[in-house]
Amino acid sequence: MNLPSRHNRDELNSTAEREFEVVEWSHGKSVIRNDSVVVEEPMEIRVLFGPASQRTMRNVSITMRTPGHDEELAIGFLVTEGLLTDREQIEQVETRGVDETGRETGNIVRVSLRPEVKFDPTRLQRHFFSTSSCGVCGKASLEALAVQGLKALENDSYCLPSRSIGMIPAALRRRQATFAKTGGLHGTGLIDSNGQVVCTREDVGRHNAVDKLVGRYFLDRKTPLSKYAMIVSGRVSFEIMQKALVASIPVIIAVGAPSSLAIETAQSYNMTLIGFASDTRFNIYSSPHRITKS
Amino acid sequence: MNLPSRHNRDELNSTAEREFEVVEWSHGKSVIRNDSVVVEEPMEIRVLFGPASQRTMRNVSITMRTPGHDEELAIGFLVTEGLLTDREQIEQVETRGVDETGRETGNIVRVSLRPEVKFDPTRLQRHFFSTSSCGVCGKASLEALAVQGLKALENDSYCLPSRSIGMIPAALRRRQATFAKTGGLHGTGLIDSNGQVVCTREDVGRHNAVDKLVGRYFLDRKTPLSKYAMIVSGRVSFEIMQKALVASIPVIIAVGAPSSLAIETAQSYNMTLIGFASDTRFNIYSSPHRITKS
Repeated sequence: MNLPSRHNRDELNSTAEREFEVVEWSHGKSVIRNDSVVVEEPMEIRVLFGPASQRTMRNVSITMRTPGHDEELAIGFLVTEGLLTDREQIEQVETRGVDETGRETGNIVRVSLRPEVKFDPTRLQRHFFSTSSCGVCGKASLEALAVQGLKALENDSYCLPSRSIGMIPAALRRRQATFAKTGGLHGTGLIDSNGQVVCTREDVGRHNAVDKLVGRYFLDRKTPLSKYAMIVSGRVSFEIMQKALVASIPVIIAVGAPSSLAIETAQSYNMTLIGFASDTRFNIYSSPHRITKS
Repeated sequence: MNLPSRHNRDELNSTAEREFEVVEWSHGKSVIRNDSVVVEEPMEIRVLFGPASQRTMRNVSITMRTPGHDEELAIGFLVTEGLLTDREQIEQVETRGVDETGRETGNIVRVSLRPEVKFDPTRLQRHFFSTSSCGVCGKASLEALAVQGLKALENDSYCLPSRSIGMIPAALRRRQATFAKTGGLHGTGLIDSNGQVVCTREDVGRHNAVDKLVGRYFLDRKTPLSKYAMIVSGRVSFEIMQKALVASIPVIIAVGAPSSLAIETAQSYNMTLIGFASDTRFNIYSSPHRITKS
């Protein structure tokens, strides 16, 4: 069995940034210098499944991402899209892919499932089309989550003191090593019940950063994440809330604005949603009972 | 023939924002108030095509978007994904969709093509899979654009004086009416050769804002956009550059950071790419010849 090993390293590897020559204009004058830029490259997720006599390979997704934590991204994607539910379904995770010069690119992650696992890749396409009591609207999108078997989160013991929320955005930024150099990455972090940021991930795509976090904890058999909050460095949309809901994360903190459908997802599934989080203020859009006064 | 009429209005309609009750924490104290939030709702694009005897309807895409300029979004998406190339291919564009109470939601846009038009919806899926001299990598993504028939832009007469670039981000912000209220929108604007922002569009999704712009100009028979620059309010990724390339926009200005693949696309297709644009400075990542000294 070959599975990504446990590691706490938040940093992306050296392929996450690249130097480019740039003409910098400043106050009417130009100079030529080098600039660190965040790397964006496609990654393909392939799933190998079915009984030994009839193994089948399927391309599940191609996503643009920043290299690093690729196996976590592949697993996290399969989990938050509802295609994987149990760590024991995974037999092997391998990274491969070569370019035309024979150089290893590592841009293909192959997830092999155990022979007895049922796997239905068409679930991905049915995502939005599966429910339509009211055709295409926000309500139908929320209903689609219920059809996938998702339930409102419970009021378990996780809560966060209001005064600790102000410190979390800065704690995330301090751990965003590649963002500091390139300015081009979304960051996400998990927060324990003491208000400490315990794991962060970065990516050029905001959904990927969430998938990398969830994938790491799924591989470590630490899901569901019902004892954690999650911070995201930007805005929060329906898709982020959907992924958080699948992972059972009860509190979502965004540095930026929420969308209407993000709030409605939070309201429907008893999730606490915080927006515009800074060191002096924040807004709670849903389920404020998890945020305590002191 | 029923086609969206020409209009210069940049503003989204009244369904683009919604009030939510929010608990606002500020300096350790909480108050309950109302907050304007940007609306995110699914929109489905359907295409009706084929000869009169055998008309076929196909769901092409469901995208999360901010309501407003929906027909432009549908047309712009079909154009920038390479599925529509000529304004005369369109017979009719209709908005429909009702919820369970019979209320018109307008979340389905149906684009009817003339009977003689060849339409291949599988092009969308083949997007990334169609080329693979080097498997899955940034270079393959660039080659996929060439396979779609895209060519490097010409060095035509469009250029922009360096001093005008500093004024463009503020000009975009002044026209972003819904962003000012909700903080939750990406903005994009077209800039003529005098450095004036002539049309802007907003959306919760950054690609949608670009599609709305391109869709408007395609419907008005004003594409290709080779005499315009485009500004985007955030970062610039491969997908934005791909859409700009299809629309022949020679200069892309981003308020945020570019990704490596955005720069490589610009370099490969002779596009001028500017990042970190502000009132005092900016970086040129590719083809600086279109930016003049004064």
